Amino acid sequence: MRDPRQIAVVGVTGYTGLELARILLRHPQLRPPVFYVRETNGAKCLAELFPQFRGWGEAPLRTLSAETIISSNAGTAFLATPHEASAELAPSLLDAGLRVVDLSGAFRFQSAETFTSWYKLPAPHADWLNEAVYGIPELYSAEIAGARLVANPGCYATSVILALCPLTQPGWIAPGSSVVCDCKSGASGAGKDPRRDLHFVEVDENFKAYNLFTHRHTPEILDHTGLSESQLIFSTHLLPLSRGILSTIYITLDEPQSAQNIEALYRKFYAGRTMVRIWPAGTLPELQHVAHTNFCDLGFALDKSGRRLIIVSCLDNLGKGAAGQAVQNFNHMLGIEEHTALQ
Amino acid sequence: MRDPRQIAVVGVTGYTGLELARILLRHPQLRPPVFYVRETNGAKCLAELFPQFRGWGEAPLRTLSAETIISSNAGTAFLATPHEASAELAPSLLDAGLRVVDLSGAFRFQSAETFTSWYKLPAPHADWLNEAVYGIPELYSAEIAGARLVANPGCYATSVILALCPLTQPGWIAPGSSVVCDCKSGASGAGKDPRRDLHFVEVDENFKAYNLFTHRHTPEILDHTGLSESQLIFSTHLLPLSRGILSTIYITLDEPQSAQNIEALYRKFYAGRTMVRIWPAGTLPELQHVAHTNFCDLGFALDKSGRRLIIVSCLDNLGKGAAGQAVQNFNHMLGIEEHTALQ
Amino acid sequence: MRDPRQIAVVGVTGYTGLELARILLRHPQLRPPVFYVRETNGAKCLAELFPQFRGWGEAPLRTLSAETIISSNAGTAFLATPHEASAELAPSLLDAGLRVVDLSGAFRFQSAETFTSWYKLPAPHADWLNEAVYGIPELYSAEIAGARLVANPGCYATSVILALCPLTQPGWIAPGSSVVCDCKSGASGAGKDPRRDLHFVEVDENFKAYNLFTHRHTPEILDHTGLSESQLIFSTHLLPLSRGILSTIYITLDEPQSAQNIEALYRKFYAGRTMVRIWPAGTLPELQHVAHTNFCDLGFALDKSGRRLIIVSCLDNLGKGAAGQAVQNFNHMLGIEEHTALQ
Amino acid sequence: MRDPRQIAVVGVTGYTGLELARILLRHPQLRPPVFYVRETNGAKCLAELFPQFRGWGEAPLRTLSAETIISSNAGTAFLATPHEASAELAPSLLDAGLRVVDLSGAFRFQSAETFTSWYKLPAPHADWLNEAVYGIPELYSAEIAGARLVANPGCYATSVILALCPLTQPGWIAPGSSVVCDCKSGASGAGKDPRRDLHFVEVDENFKAYNLFTHRHTPEILDHTGLSESQLIFSTHLLPLSRGILSTIYITLDEPQSAQNIEALYRKFYAGRTMVRIWPAGTLPELQHVAHTNFCDLGFALDKSGRRLIIVSCLDNLGKGAAGQAVQNFNHMLGIEEHTALQ
Repeated sequence: MRDPRQIAVVGVTGYTGLELARILLRHPQLRPPVFYVRETNGAKCLAELFPQFRGWGEAPLRTLSAETIISSNAGTAFLATPHEASAELAPSLLDAGLRVVDLSGAFRFQSAETFTSWYKLPAPHADWLNEAVYGIPELYSAEIAGARLVANPGCYATSVILALCPLTQPGWIAPGSSVVCDCKSGASGAGKDPRRDLHFVEVDENFKAYNLFTHRHTPEILDHTGLSESQLIFSTHLLPLSRGILSTIYITLDEPQSAQNIEALYRKFYAGRTMVRIWPAGTLPELQHVAHTNFCDLGFALDKSGRRLIIVSCLDNLGKGAAGQAVQNFNHMLGIEEHTALQ
Repeated sequence: MRDPRQIAVVGVTGYTGLELARILLRHPQLRPPVFYVRETNGAKCLAELFPQFRGWGEAPLRTLSAETIISSNAGTAFLATPHEASAELAPSLLDAGLRVVDLSGAFRFQSAETFTSWYKLPAPHADWLNEAVYGIPELYSAEIAGARLVANPGCYATSVILALCPLTQPGWIAPGSSVVCDCKSGASGAGKDPRRDLHFVEVDENFKAYNLFTHRHTPEILDHTGLSESQLIFSTHLLPLSRGILSTIYITLDEPQSAQNIEALYRKFYAGRTMVRIWPAGTLPELQHVAHTNFCDLGFALDKSGRRLIIVSCLDNLGKGAAGQAVQNFNHMLGIEEHTALQ
Repeated sequence: MRDPRQIAVVGVTGYTGLELARILLRHPQLRPPVFYVRETNGAKCLAELFPQFRGWGEAPLRTLSAETIISSNAGTAFLATPHEASAELAPSLLDAGLRVVDLSGAFRFQSAETFTSWYKLPAPHADWLNEAVYGIPELYSAEIAGARLVANPGCYATSVILALCPLTQPGWIAPGSSVVCDCKSGASGAGKDPRRDLHFVEVDENFKAYNLFTHRHTPEILDHTGLSESQLIFSTHLLPLSRGILSTIYITLDEPQSAQNIEALYRKFYAGRTMVRIWPAGTLPELQHVAHTNFCDLGFALDKSGRRLIIVSCLDNLGKGAAGQAVQNFNHMLGIEEHTALQ
Repeated sequence: MRDPRQIAVVGVTGYTGLELARILLRHPQLRPPVFYVRETNGAKCLAELFPQFRGWGEAPLRTLSAETIISSNAGTAFLATPHEASAELAPSLLDAGLRVVDLSGAFRFQSAETFTSWYKLPAPHADWLNEAVYGIPELYSAEIAGARLVANPGCYATSVILALCPLTQPGWIAPGSSVVCDCKSGASGAGKDPRRDLHFVEVDENFKAYNLFTHRHTPEILDHTGLSESQLIFSTHLLPLSRGILSTIYITLDEPQSAQNIEALYRKFYAGRTMVRIWPAGTLPELQHVAHTNFCDLGFALDKSGRRLIIVSCLDNLGKGAAGQAVQNFNHMLGIEEHTALQ
């Protein structure tokens, strides 16, 4: 019998996978999770490969294969794998009765066309795309609760969508006006594979823009904010730090607003949500406030005219932007309090 | 007799002043500059206060007073002083026949009202405001050549103005459209005085926005780009690094353009200018490319529609953003090649 | 009636105090702790002063006075205060029946003379010095269990003492040979007060030695390793990072040893200790492995002769070096598992 | 006819090569240097491969081959190549009449055995090993002036040798006592090739020891200080910064000394040397003082007994530790002032 609290964690070697391990190993309501990697090199437990996990408790390590996972009693799988691997692995696991939280881009789009045009790959089968729930609990908690397959969002996408959603209700953004999202991320967001441009000396004391007009998180933002492609301007930058995304978002309002109105809008929209924190008018969040947490902090500034609004959105790209949100989704799937293991 | 190559450097203790010292001490066409500080603490030369200057050659240090400077044969004074001090000191030096390059905000505005409304202080006398030349040599080289008083621009302002000026000619920016300037600076731009928010632990692994809609460099940008107050949206952020400003600037073009057109516009506008480097279409500058230099590097990206343009502007806030540009202005004032001592 | 699980945390505004708050707020076996600061500025809870604590649960904030703490039912006080303040406050609280964990240097020495000669201040009354237990649970767990007053050790001292203690048993260190302890710490160890030498720009891309032969943690190391003053050479350096101490310790062994012997010595000495992790021969710990944890990681290298040994000791100066160890001590005082709230 | 001021720079793609380019391009007494790389990818000048060199003047780029260099009129070659490549290339160039400054380890040892035992490779021919001069101008200026082949020292080795040499005269170091050299280097010293352990996220907020008792710079230090293998303890650490080496060196003196004596010894030893700066007793150098310079800064602290001495040695691993010293050696070879292009 599958036990949903028996977890299989697949692909633990990247920064997201390691963060997932850190969170799941202190989750109070799980059986000891089992970790799967392509190459164990003879290691039997996580700490043999990653010595920082010594003393963290039982963490068995196994060679990855769909069969091994299926033949265990695992009820839930987290896939911290590249989208090609996830696209292949998830259907087998789902067919065998596991629930899946996938952290790649493979199942984030309803439209196969969107996936293919941005990822240059054949999309997973339409049935799975249709069944997958986009995993932002603040927006889709009901769907996530009943989901078999949750597509955990992109880190930039989470940062921007949470900041914009309250405003995408009618009457706030001036119709047709541009929405500029200037986003900055720490280097762990770029993955762990050695690359010349991620060498310490290339990132240290440096800052740069990259992938302008071409970043793969763009279609996620379009899908979940309802902005049109011509309205959204989304840019990404690399910060000389390890963890965190700060997005500065520029909006033209349809009518002049007061700071109280804006703050009230956000407070109401996120009422009862434990993981989004609204900063009082006149204050702004910073990356340090959210590093190593699952919070998304939102603050804003309004100009004298009351028509030009800047939203500042902060999260940890490995926390609310990836592993933390994956566990938050899992908590919703199991009906556990959403912040369990996340504080 | 005043000798314009005999330099008095006032206020050498801040980051800008120290950078100025570094540049002037290797300027091949000067007499040994004399440095003035409020408190010498008995030191007779720069290296006694700042040991990093040992072995850099003669650098006499004196207690600051207008009289001491005036009674020397100095022909040019650099003022790396707060705007209150510059406002007081510059007129005396000018009256005594020195030329002045002022690095503060005191003389950057024609309008006394603008100064007072942003700096909350009485403005210097209107005669001096009128006589002062705004020191961006790429825009005002003729005026600078003959100037007695050059107001060296703000670091953010230089970054944004150089990026925008080519586009502010008619036909490029869509009339009435917003121009968003999202600027990020290293911590040396905030000055050297100890402050809780500049403690290493507060800046390291952190990133934040600050002074939204209220930054003092705003009116400089308005004055020298011709943008209206309602068009310009200017934001500032603090990077966890020491030197450099990168501005990401979002523009809606009046008509669709090709990347070639944009590149050609910039190349033509800055033809013959040694200190502005235009990056070929498809490439973008980074902060490391300009750190410890006097270059301003400009690159861009254009979306598929040809109507949405992003300009990326990089400079060293202590170089082209302050001390470097001050020396470039000085070189123009003396008819020396503009990049002397700056490469 | 005093409740030992009702905690008063005094002096929460520094880096150590904030880390203590973070740990205690997630401790599963406490009443909600009450925080005391000199100036509440009208704030009623921790998150009003430190917004990063929003959403972390109840954390009442009160104006500090011995009377207020005494008149509450608090059974244990943590003092994250300067040594002058601790020296004054601790006796009153102890007399009123509270237990005290003091994180300052005030009660770390049996000898009043030692305190006065290194801290240039009158020592607390000898009765308290005698009663205080030096809080390294790996060495003094029995004494800590029954203690009313625990003196939490210095961060450098913890790093060095844990590394050296196994070797200070007879037969290991060559008698009379020098023991060189070259220690490097992140900037949070220097405190939160704004200082010119802790400005971001002064620490970033910099590294330096400081307080050579004069660091206050010296006498703690002498007291708890039994080394003589002429044997111990202890140096401290400032790393351009926020958290962590790495000590490289050079030892001449009395007789040639094998790596297995050394590893076995350490494993045996720390058997059953959850917070000291011994690294296998041939591997070395790094600061990232212990950041944000309460672990002290120990590794070593031995030269071919088997007589020259290098020990590498890593801990988080705010974790095992301060707040984490304070909570570990508290857990021992209450008979709770020592790693509670520390993983 | 070969022109010694016509330079061939080989292997410009690493951090050392790029720093060499920066220095040579501003050297006032050279013909425009020609740069050689394995793969030009069609680039004709340095700035096409490395855009930071735009605007730096003429810098022709060519595909590397011994023949091409030999058939040019180059009189001096700088080899910023791995030791295998240098070992192969240098003899051909020397035979063809060029002078060579080699920045690799290939020619640093008189003894072929030493090279082979530390580098696990066959050594270059003994004739070349014998002819090569070890390039520390403060020690061997006469030999360098007449040399055809200069072996530029290792970065750590330079830092330690300059610190120790004054003390290795008889009467200072206690005979037989250990000399501990605890060295810390920035990440550019590890080269530019992408490696997992040099990924930004692995170095940022981290610090570690590496290569204990096995670092290849050990035999250079032994050769040029006269210390015995059992006396020298040399360790290396990786700092989370880009440039700089700080060595903390622990010495037991034969007899008690005063701080004045120590300072006098160093001042006398380095009298007239422009590139070694002695810090006054009571002050210590820091990495920021030497970053982007060719200085080696030496300071010290002495304990109360006058017998235990700590020397702190700072240099830029790409400056005095590599490219800067290479140019200083070249200046000596040509009889140019040694600091030309280095200030």
